[in-house]
Amino acid sequence: MTHKIAILGASGYTGAELIRLIAGHPHMEIVALSGERKAGMKMTDVFPHLRHMALPTLCKIDEIDFSGVDLCFCALPHKTSQQVIRDLPADLKVVDLSADFRLRDPEAYHKWYGNAHAALEQQEKAVYGLSEFYREQIKGARLVAGTGCNAATGQFALRPLISAGVIDLDDIILDLKCAVSGAGRSLKENLLHAELSEGYNAYAIGGTHRHLGEFDQEFSALAGRPVRVQFTPHLIPANRGILATVYVKGDAHEIYRAFENAYADEPFVELLPFGEAPSTHHVRGSNFVHIGVAADRIEGRTIVIAALDNLTKGSSGQALQNANLMLGEDETTGLMMAPLFP
Amino acid sequence: MTHKIAILGASGYTGAELIRLIAGHPHMEIVALSGERKAGMKMTDVFPHLRHMALPTLCKIDEIDFSGVDLCFCALPHKTSQQVIRDLPADLKVVDLSADFRLRDPEAYHKWYGNAHAALEQQEKAVYGLSEFYREQIKGARLVAGTGCNAATGQFALRPLISAGVIDLDDIILDLKCAVSGAGRSLKENLLHAELSEGYNAYAIGGTHRHLGEFDQEFSALAGRPVRVQFTPHLIPANRGILATVYVKGDAHEIYRAFENAYADEPFVELLPFGEAPSTHHVRGSNFVHIGVAADRIEGRTIVIAALDNLTKGSSGQALQNANLMLGEDETTGLMMAPLFP
Amino acid sequence: MTHKIAILGASGYTGAELIRLIAGHPHMEIVALSGERKAGMKMTDVFPHLRHMALPTLCKIDEIDFSGVDLCFCALPHKTSQQVIRDLPADLKVVDLSADFRLRDPEAYHKWYGNAHAALEQQEKAVYGLSEFYREQIKGARLVAGTGCNAATGQFALRPLISAGVIDLDDIILDLKCAVSGAGRSLKENLLHAELSEGYNAYAIGGTHRHLGEFDQEFSALAGRPVRVQFTPHLIPANRGILATVYVKGDAHEIYRAFENAYADEPFVELLPFGEAPSTHHVRGSNFVHIGVAADRIEGRTIVIAALDNLTKGSSGQALQNANLMLGEDETTGLMMAPLFP
Amino acid sequence: MTHKIAILGASGYTGAELIRLIAGHPHMEIVALSGERKAGMKMTDVFPHLRHMALPTLCKIDEIDFSGVDLCFCALPHKTSQQVIRDLPADLKVVDLSADFRLRDPEAYHKWYGNAHAALEQQEKAVYGLSEFYREQIKGARLVAGTGCNAATGQFALRPLISAGVIDLDDIILDLKCAVSGAGRSLKENLLHAELSEGYNAYAIGGTHRHLGEFDQEFSALAGRPVRVQFTPHLIPANRGILATVYVKGDAHEIYRAFENAYADEPFVELLPFGEAPSTHHVRGSNFVHIGVAADRIEGRTIVIAALDNLTKGSSGQALQNANLMLGEDETTGLMMAPLFP
Repeated sequence: MTHKIAILGASGYTGAELIRLIAGHPHMEIVALSGERKAGMKMTDVFPHLRHMALPTLCKIDEIDFSGVDLCFCALPHKTSQQVIRDLPADLKVVDLSADFRLRDPEAYHKWYGNAHAALEQQEKAVYGLSEFYREQIKGARLVAGTGCNAATGQFALRPLISAGVIDLDDIILDLKCAVSGAGRSLKENLLHAELSEGYNAYAIGGTHRHLGEFDQEFSALAGRPVRVQFTPHLIPANRGILATVYVKGDAHEIYRAFENAYADEPFVELLPFGEAPSTHHVRGSNFVHIGVAADRIEGRTIVIAALDNLTKGSSGQALQNANLMLGEDETTGLMMAPLFP
Repeated sequence: MTHKIAILGASGYTGAELIRLIAGHPHMEIVALSGERKAGMKMTDVFPHLRHMALPTLCKIDEIDFSGVDLCFCALPHKTSQQVIRDLPADLKVVDLSADFRLRDPEAYHKWYGNAHAALEQQEKAVYGLSEFYREQIKGARLVAGTGCNAATGQFALRPLISAGVIDLDDIILDLKCAVSGAGRSLKENLLHAELSEGYNAYAIGGTHRHLGEFDQEFSALAGRPVRVQFTPHLIPANRGILATVYVKGDAHEIYRAFENAYADEPFVELLPFGEAPSTHHVRGSNFVHIGVAADRIEGRTIVIAALDNLTKGSSGQALQNANLMLGEDETTGLMMAPLFP
Repeated sequence: MTHKIAILGASGYTGAELIRLIAGHPHMEIVALSGERKAGMKMTDVFPHLRHMALPTLCKIDEIDFSGVDLCFCALPHKTSQQVIRDLPADLKVVDLSADFRLRDPEAYHKWYGNAHAALEQQEKAVYGLSEFYREQIKGARLVAGTGCNAATGQFALRPLISAGVIDLDDIILDLKCAVSGAGRSLKENLLHAELSEGYNAYAIGGTHRHLGEFDQEFSALAGRPVRVQFTPHLIPANRGILATVYVKGDAHEIYRAFENAYADEPFVELLPFGEAPSTHHVRGSNFVHIGVAADRIEGRTIVIAALDNLTKGSSGQALQNANLMLGEDETTGLMMAPLFP
Repeated sequence: MTHKIAILGASGYTGAELIRLIAGHPHMEIVALSGERKAGMKMTDVFPHLRHMALPTLCKIDEIDFSGVDLCFCALPHKTSQQVIRDLPADLKVVDLSADFRLRDPEAYHKWYGNAHAALEQQEKAVYGLSEFYREQIKGARLVAGTGCNAATGQFALRPLISAGVIDLDDIILDLKCAVSGAGRSLKENLLHAELSEGYNAYAIGGTHRHLGEFDQEFSALAGRPVRVQFTPHLIPANRGILATVYVKGDAHEIYRAFENAYADEPFVELLPFGEAPSTHHVRGSNFVHIGVAADRIEGRTIVIAALDNLTKGSSGQALQNANLMLGEDETTGLMMAPLFP
């Protein structure tokens, strides 16, 4: 059986990544691709690396006949996504890659994104799309909200520790190193090669990055009381990858055991031998997460490091993993390709 | 049916790339991996990006029981390869990725590589592994010699033109831009990040690069008379990719038609619309070749540009394509993955 | 004695490079910096790497009192430059970094740039700013036209050969590899880090790049008859540098001697030992040009390679060299800094 | 007056950087360059970017007549340096760039470096070379020990805060992002372009990096009681730069004032406006340090970020600054060049 797939917003990097992944999926077929500003263009002209594929021409969303679609990926910009999803057929399965349905609380949404939500009904029902932790709800969901790529990385490093009660909840620091594709295909001066390559810097310092909304929501729910973390992202001259260096207070071996218990059966999460450090080099282009744990020389302090590819496990790979769950496919179908190295 | 595969020399980049590709092949199983200096090591420690795979531990070649092997990839260094292959079971199918069996003439081999060949019997029978042009011989071969990555790129740009008689054979210039993984995992000062990134240069200038031996052999055979080309490689700060900018004398539209005729049914060769230039960005991690043709402002002069990934189509992907042919598989099995972009 | 300097268009890369260079010049003082869209901004906010310097705030051009200015650098966009320069005080010394005054023939200008020239009077008097070849005219000039960065590189590789009559004028191929800062600080998709890094491609193929207008003008004037070259630029994932690989027909040793004669006394041109290849790594951030010559294996064919930094010798360094000549300074003042490596 | 300078170990990156800087110093002349393994080679062949300079040929150390030398820079490997310096003339001024004389306590040296010190007499008298904080001792010193590049960066971010007593001394985390030239010109697999570019990772995790010995020594001396920090370095795909993101507990505005007081008159330290984040892009190739301070959303937590160029301010620029002090020159002579951007 072949599932008919539509991708809305196919002209950005997460759209292209979805197409790359679906091309290797044995039970999916792309039947529609939208791109409002580039409607009428061939995908070959938007993404020449897809030249070998027979793909639908980009169209406008309102030209799509959704009756023939089994599942729709939404890779639209924030705020646009909620308006579009509100008006999609009520029984259409949707995986959203934007930020619009990640926060369950409309007030939290307003606080972090600055506007009232335009699709409160859908927001209420959306399931948070971190597959490893929301698997059962995702299977039955109509709308799944893809997580922030930084938020995903930080949660892989911290959720099992909060659940197991092995760290101090009031002293958690996430220092994230992010590659540039996380910023999308947008024309900003600081994303130019000449500005970015050969140097690096922190941004959104002081706790202003929007993914903090996700951390607050998820960690507080897990802990059963408010949890607030420190989170500083850095822009690194590379195209793919997020590395989260997380500083916690807790016993390193207890922490390691909590990861062993949590991830023993997870096909995409690799726990490294104690004391080893993961690298974004080793997950590029794949759906894997690598996690390392080390004890600091100061007793009672532990360093946890998580690495993933922001476009794959952090976004489009996660989305496909969720789509597999929603469609009754094996969760790993089309997602077991090895990373590209070098 | 599953083919049992051995890879000799699995600790280099072409070895790792073979493993990545075979991981996605439905009818192949890796049963042995050799690495003389790293024998006894787990692949996870040699290539942490393969951590998720269950792979044999690296062993020495003489520890392998070849009776249970259907096909053997040799990714060993030049000169070592011929000695090893000479001693392999006579009926074992072998795809060699080294330079050792590319040149059919022992004197030409001696001229370009500086030593007498140690396996003349095997050399005589080896088939040149440019799949698109030696397909039928490869199907029946016992030993296939993978081409040089630069040599492959140049031949995709020139073979159809020489065959069709549409260019001046005495005035052909290949200006190649090569990424660094073509130099392998060797510890050389000029391959360090600090030496290579942010700059670029020509090397082997003046017609001294060994891949000229392949050009001379293949182009002369095609033309039925001696053909010698100019070839200047350049080292570019990128990890994967070869771009061949080829300057020829001939009519651009005739040249374009020659490509159309030659590549119409080829699954891995994409001819761009007339006047468009290909990019290594758009073939990374894939087995595709992109070819562009443009007329110069000076009448009778044409620019042909070919782009491929040196580790995939230029080496390990080509090797797998040949193995498919030798094993009776569809040539494209396991090789249709889309390029990784960005 | 200190020369008072104004820089118009100081918010682009060539403007920033001028400021960097002038900061090390013992006899120059920056008295005005213009930036129309960013007028009122501090340079620290436009270019934080200049934070340590006391610089004028960006203003609009019409706010500058040119009576206190000894020399004005124009780093404005093409077409804007000619309008601004037309209206500057007639006795103000000007070094223009745009393309507007490079072509002496108004028809040639119209052909390559697509519009009628707005300052024909000034165009007629402008001196072509390739310091090593127009030294005497530059000393007496009121307006000097900085060359194209590609055009400069190609001319360093070819002018002495054309003058000495040692190459075939009808078969010259320039294959150029250009770093991205040559495209300026403009927001274009192909200049994004995610699009550019890790890959490369030709552009403006077939003889359409505007710098061909300069080659045609200069080479024909030198030869005393029309000369047209083939020129294909490539965009390389690096920030600074141009490498010109030039294929000519002529004797390599005669060619080498022509360079020895031409450049023996030039402080910024380094001729490498015969057979060695220069690298953009070794000129970065400096005003030097490195030139290499090698004989091809095919008799009578020679490869000439020139490397320079497009922002320094190819643009702002050249501009300062010309300003030194115009102001009676030693030509090398403020320009002998060593390249930055690694 | 011109000071005669010798550089021992001139074939590494810090040696090359010293030559680049001294080339722009009006009162220094290089009279001897040593390189044991490359003795007899011209610097042009070791570092082609210095081709334009007239430099002494590399020699062995025992070939140098130190009677004609005013000051000697030692850019030798760790352990070699102490043996060489022990045997230099007792009155020769020496700036050492190795780790050998950074730790004052022989036991601490043994703990971090694993061997007994071979020049205890010199070690005792050596002055720690962080110019801004040891200025007066450096002026009178015979031997100055250059600091670790990471150690320098961390100290710029923390010393004024410890001195002013405005942070919790028991909860300091330094997350450092280091460019690759800090690892020197050594042939290691992880420093290859193919291994390093496009990815990043932590190393020496858990408090094992040797620069912790310097932090412990300096911070404890400042505080008058033991201070131990957490320090995790990361290897970033860039050639120059260190960015220290420092997490402290203390009031952000008090912290900012402590920096204002400490650095108001420092020519090389730039304190950014409150809340702004520095970038390694903006210090490349220069002797400047940029420092930013931001308040976290969690009250009482502050983020301090320091950026410098590891080869300049972190090593060779610092060394020249110290040499200026030792020779009675103005501290900034030859060091005010602007950063190279882009």
